[in-house]
Amino acid sequence: VPAVSLEQIASLCKRRGIIYPGSEIYGGLQGTYDYGPVGVELKNNIVDSWWRTNVYERDDMEGLDAAILMNPLTWNHSGHEETFVDPLVDCRECKSRYRADNIGTTCPTCGSDDLTEPRPFNLMFKTQVGPVTEDNSFAYLRPETAQGIFVNFDNVLTTTARKLPFGIAQVGKGFRNEINPRNFLFRVREFDMMEIEFFVAPGTEDEWHEKWLQDRLAWWQSIGVSRDHISIYDVPKGDLAHYSKRTYDLMYAYPTLGYEEIEGIASRTDFDLGSHTRYQDKYDLTAQVKPNADSTTRLSYFDVPSNKHIVPFVVEPSAGVGRCMLAVLCEAYDEPMVKAPNEDRLKIVSDGLNTFNQSVSKNEKLPTELRDGLQAFGESIAQDILEKMPQINALLAMPGADRIQLGK
Amino acid sequence: VPAVSLEQIASLCKRRGIIYPGSEIYGGLQGTYDYGPVGVELKNNIVDSWWRTNVYERDDMEGLDAAILMNPLTWNHSGHEETFVDPLVDCRECKSRYRADNIGTTCPTCGSDDLTEPRPFNLMFKTQVGPVTEDNSFAYLRPETAQGIFVNFDNVLTTTARKLPFGIAQVGKGFRNEINPRNFLFRVREFDMMEIEFFVAPGTEDEWHEKWLQDRLAWWQSIGVSRDHISIYDVPKGDLAHYSKRTYDLMYAYPTLGYEEIEGIASRTDFDLGSHTRYQDKYDLTAQVKPNADSTTRLSYFDVPSNKHIVPFVVEPSAGVGRCMLAVLCEAYDEPMVKAPNEDRLKIVSDGLNTFNQSVSKNEKLPTELRDGLQAFGESIAQDILEKMPQINALLAMPGADRIQLGK
Repeated sequence: VPAVSLEQIASLCKRRGIIYPGSEIYGGLQGTYDYGPVGVELKNNIVDSWWRTNVYERDDMEGLDAAILMNPLTWNHSGHEETFVDPLVDCRECKSRYRADNIGTTCPTCGSDDLTEPRPFNLMFKTQVGPVTEDNSFAYLRPETAQGIFVNFDNVLTTTARKLPFGIAQVGKGFRNEINPRNFLFRVREFDMMEIEFFVAPGTEDEWHEKWLQDRLAWWQSIGVSRDHISIYDVPKGDLAHYSKRTYDLMYAYPTLGYEEIEGIASRTDFDLGSHTRYQDKYDLTAQVKPNADSTTRLSYFDVPSNKHIVPFVVEPSAGVGRCMLAVLCEAYDEPMVKAPNEDRLKIVSDGLNTFNQSVSKNEKLPTELRDGLQAFGESIAQDILEKMPQINALLAMPGADRIQLGK
Repeated sequence: VPAVSLEQIASLCKRRGIIYPGSEIYGGLQGTYDYGPVGVELKNNIVDSWWRTNVYERDDMEGLDAAILMNPLTWNHSGHEETFVDPLVDCRECKSRYRADNIGTTCPTCGSDDLTEPRPFNLMFKTQVGPVTEDNSFAYLRPETAQGIFVNFDNVLTTTARKLPFGIAQVGKGFRNEINPRNFLFRVREFDMMEIEFFVAPGTEDEWHEKWLQDRLAWWQSIGVSRDHISIYDVPKGDLAHYSKRTYDLMYAYPTLGYEEIEGIASRTDFDLGSHTRYQDKYDLTAQVKPNADSTTRLSYFDVPSNKHIVPFVVEPSAGVGRCMLAVLCEAYDEPMVKAPNEDRLKIVSDGLNTFNQSVSKNEKLPTELRDGLQAFGESIAQDILEKMPQINALLAMPGADRIQLGK
């Protein structure tokens, strides 16, 4: 039986050491998760497979690992300071706060309809840097790894002498201060991303966008995510960001959630490099960019055929490791239907358990603490033997169980 | 010739795509670095080697990957809120701020001796979590990965059914809001750590501390860091933290810096699990711990031989990936002493270059921009041919160089 709910998966993950809720012993920290001994290996396997496919097995890709903390001008010119927001509403009655587009006209906590108008809430975490508290002595925790690639475009180009088309691949942490984190690994505040910025000559972006769609679908199949469970959402023109020419969202059929985004493949024109480059006026940028008087570096490429310095177009396949892991777990989930044992077998097991429980209660050598533990657990199984039979193994593995002499 | 200064290494790293200063196009962000195409591979190789040696090739280790953002109670009970501080002084004259133990009695910026008394400055970055601004709606960026291991001790124990001794290994980001980041990768604000918390029965910690010292030394040699360049510093009792029984610091002979810490191997008694466990009073803790009424979970182990629940002792080998990378780069650095070419050869090359430069200046088909670039670079080499001869390769690789017809 495949997984029918995210709760099933979350519960399995905790029991088997795949994923634990973050900071659990202190009541947790909403939207954070810790990968356990099994989970860290699965996560590393996913990342390794992605890196192998996209960096080692291609001739047109370089790797990168940029810092999480960046100069805040990055997020000014990328547009995140202005537009990376969710609409926030307050309930005037109970003071709860919600993402406006997730609730209706009443507060999910108290039912009141006395809600504020939605106002923009920026999702970037902010922190002070250095001991000075001047205006500019802060940084954001990056909400995506992509900008670390764009600001290093010239560094990578200079040191590798790449020709277009080529890409830069990066895996790393991102952070978003979600108003209401939810749905296990699906919407969290700290996550790992696998992002490619693929730089192409203007005019070839459509062709590369289609190629990347096929390449990425092939990868998802290669790691065991069935093609039948992924649908391609061609984002309607009206829903695209102003700089996006076209975006394919790969949607995975998650239990509980239905089809939700597992990867975005966006054709982003020259918006990104154009926003961060020095001397914007020297290039015939097609994207509408904010003037940039801060950048010290041209993010352009000398195109031999046209004999011109151009700002490359970008195709961006961007996937989340957590959402990928969740899909892989869903694909692999299999819960065997256990047939009820026949009556004879049930009686044999039941009699054996009762004998064990009696021997526990009569034992006088075990420390009270151990004996009480064995007794409570043994009796809880006996009361519902049909359902709890598999727990007898755990009972016999408890400290002290090996010192019970049956019948005594 | 081996590396004689960190500047040499930093310069090589930038030129070759190993490590770039972070956010360089916006003037940087002090204490952050981006790993380029070569650097990310070297970094991953180091981490993979550490993981293979410590997790895959041992029978007594589990892996973990905990979140960077943790419930702040973690840092209260670990002691970091109170003691993870550096002494900060202000210059009343020019308003610069310095770590008191790095300067004398005068300001390094303006020379004034009008400095404030040192006061404690906490090195943990802090950020608001969620849209609420209540007192407890914040988190720190973890300054070490170790605490993510301690708070998951019971989770890992439960899901793996390990017996003592066993360890938990983790690689991940840490952040410290250094007052004065400096010395390239050596003292930074964002870094990767490789940490092991090895849990042992009380009484066996000295033996394991010695074993870990040998195991770690063997690893450093295995990745090419010469044993001759590492010295073992047995931290004097008086300099140890109150919970540390003994600490070996492995000191690497860095150029510029001299011997500085590359790894710490600390014997930490039962301080860590004792600080985070529920029901501290039930255990005969040897370490002096702060009372903990917040933890929901016992971080103890049922010891069959003694028939008691005990809090294990910890041996902690903890190394920084950046400092490791720096050492590996220093070990591998080799600058060939180039002998001056003889006069005949010099004349041949010099004549050839002059012919090329003349052909550039006469060329009328190349766009002005390209021609000017070739000309300026070619002449700069000609003016100092003895020193700059190797740059001729770069000249001939410039756009347009292949369209110069010699002698025309």
